[in-house]
Amino acid sequence: VRALVLDGDGTLSLRDRPKPSTASAECVIRVTAAGICGTDLELRRGYAGFSGVPGHEFVGTVTDAKPADSKWTGRRVAGEITVGCGECHGCRVAGRGHCDVRTVLGIRGRDGAFAEYLSLPSMNLHALPDPIDDVTAVFVEPTAAACRVVEQVQIDDRTRAAVVGAGRLGLLVAQVLRSHGATVTVVGRSESSRTIAATLGLDTVGADSSASLARMYDVVVDATGDAAGFASASALVRPRGTLVVKSTFHGVTPVSFSPLVVDEIAVIGSRCGPFSRAIELLGSGAVGVKPLVAAIYPLEQFARAFDRATHGLKVILTPGSS
Amino acid sequence: VRALVLDGDGTLSLRDRPKPSTASAECVIRVTAAGICGTDLELRRGYAGFSGVPGHEFVGTVTDAKPADSKWTGRRVAGEITVGCGECHGCRVAGRGHCDVRTVLGIRGRDGAFAEYLSLPSMNLHALPDPIDDVTAVFVEPTAAACRVVEQVQIDDRTRAAVVGAGRLGLLVAQVLRSHGATVTVVGRSESSRTIAATLGLDTVGADSSASLARMYDVVVDATGDAAGFASASALVRPRGTLVVKSTFHGVTPVSFSPLVVDEIAVIGSRCGPFSRAIELLGSGAVGVKPLVAAIYPLEQFARAFDRATHGLKVILTPGSS
Repeated sequence: VRALVLDGDGTLSLRDRPKPSTASAECVIRVTAAGICGTDLELRRGYAGFSGVPGHEFVGTVTDAKPADSKWTGRRVAGEITVGCGECHGCRVAGRGHCDVRTVLGIRGRDGAFAEYLSLPSMNLHALPDPIDDVTAVFVEPTAAACRVVEQVQIDDRTRAAVVGAGRLGLLVAQVLRSHGATVTVVGRSESSRTIAATLGLDTVGADSSASLARMYDVVVDATGDAAGFASASALVRPRGTLVVKSTFHGVTPVSFSPLVVDEIAVIGSRCGPFSRAIELLGSGAVGVKPLVAAIYPLEQFARAFDRATHGLKVILTPGSS
Repeated sequence: VRALVLDGDGTLSLRDRPKPSTASAECVIRVTAAGICGTDLELRRGYAGFSGVPGHEFVGTVTDAKPADSKWTGRRVAGEITVGCGECHGCRVAGRGHCDVRTVLGIRGRDGAFAEYLSLPSMNLHALPDPIDDVTAVFVEPTAAACRVVEQVQIDDRTRAAVVGAGRLGLLVAQVLRSHGATVTVVGRSESSRTIAATLGLDTVGADSSASLARMYDVVVDATGDAAGFASASALVRPRGTLVVKSTFHGVTPVSFSPLVVDEIAVIGSRCGPFSRAIELLGSGAVGVKPLVAAIYPLEQFARAFDRATHGLKVILTPGSS
């Protein structure tokens, strides 16, 4: 099985790996397409200390399954990325996604989707309806992550929301908030990303000109993952408003707590979300993704693909398409 | 009027100041006792850029009022510290406490309680019942701030709560959480502060030995105001739990966001709270304060008083008692 392997020193290389089997009582999936995420870029820089096969946004077809899971064989699926034990303290207090001994596809203790095959337990799988094509299906996982925000924060048609960061994740979050009735402004640094936001029908404003919007938003989502983005997101939140941190931060961020305390801001970390809701929103077109796709590469061209992914839009690899 | 004045360079000195008048349509109050708060210590170090008379925890007697406020004359009162306009953006979206042009007693644009007299609008005043003596009454304002936590976070008899910081504010917060049914652990650095916590019937643990309690608490309140305290508070919160920042931070705190995001922690800033609830809890004895009092000094001994206040317990000045 051809696979892209990340070593501890941050280098990526194509190698042969053993094919996953159903011996672990998991379903084996041939990966048709897999997206490169901001987290993958951070993994190369040492985030989470991961080595192995990265990749966690995927669509594929189940090729092998134990008899108990035979109904999955042949199905086109997306998959939730965290595998929890269901019994530990973390599972009990916060669900399997917060398992103390969890593995996470392509992020923690489990090989991921930048390979011809991967395996996951059937309970993690979601069958994809035909209208969702493979390119769109790659966005199920990040759209689910975007949907997590509306589970955590009350969003309705009185909500004024801002999303800081007009990249892959930010534009998904903005569309999800809009689908729940919020009035949404996207704050982006580059004109090209704001143009794409506009293509999706989103209102945009440049990061430079956001000062006049200080303290105006009920809910602000930081989708930048950097200190400057967090600072400008903080400035946009109204007193007693909510700032959702929806990105992978690596290292230490200097935070001025005083304004957050004085304005009684709630800063909420946000991770994985509901796949079923994401599939609905992608199927109905409420969340559009085609303008977010920069390029599609075969696995062999991973170096170009990762380079391209640093520019903000979605790059897709096609490890097991034939 | 004798008053303690803070200059821009952080020096404190006793001076004569004009007596406040009712010309501003505010009530004039003779200050019987006033507590030194962690924020006062931070003000000396430049927090909030305040110069003038500090002090915002007080009890006093109304000596002068406009005819419309004549019912207040002669009453013993505590007072809410923020004066808002009631009309601006901040007032509309988050209440007068978050007024864009607010003044705050002894903290922002308004002389405070370390003086023989102060003035506040009558709408800020709360009459004190006789059973609450003057020393106890000094704790109304910080106890109200502690009560703010239970307005922001659901607390009941299933809640496991930890309070990091066994100083003045931490021990008030711990007692308020307990009064709402939570099981509370106080994490303190010094043995003497933990002894006082125990006197109040609170369970305590040393900061050194809190590692075994990692990720165990639904709600954690950081009452330390420093980076080390915030870090140990972060470590105690369970996945999807809440970390309340209940202190005055000055400057920039380095924060490792990744665990907060991965564990989906909500970090909530918390400031002023309901005086009426604080008066109830102090009156019933649900919140005990006498073990928190380190010393009482006349205004002239402010230097000794401020020095003593750096050691964690409450020091009280008696500017207008005679």
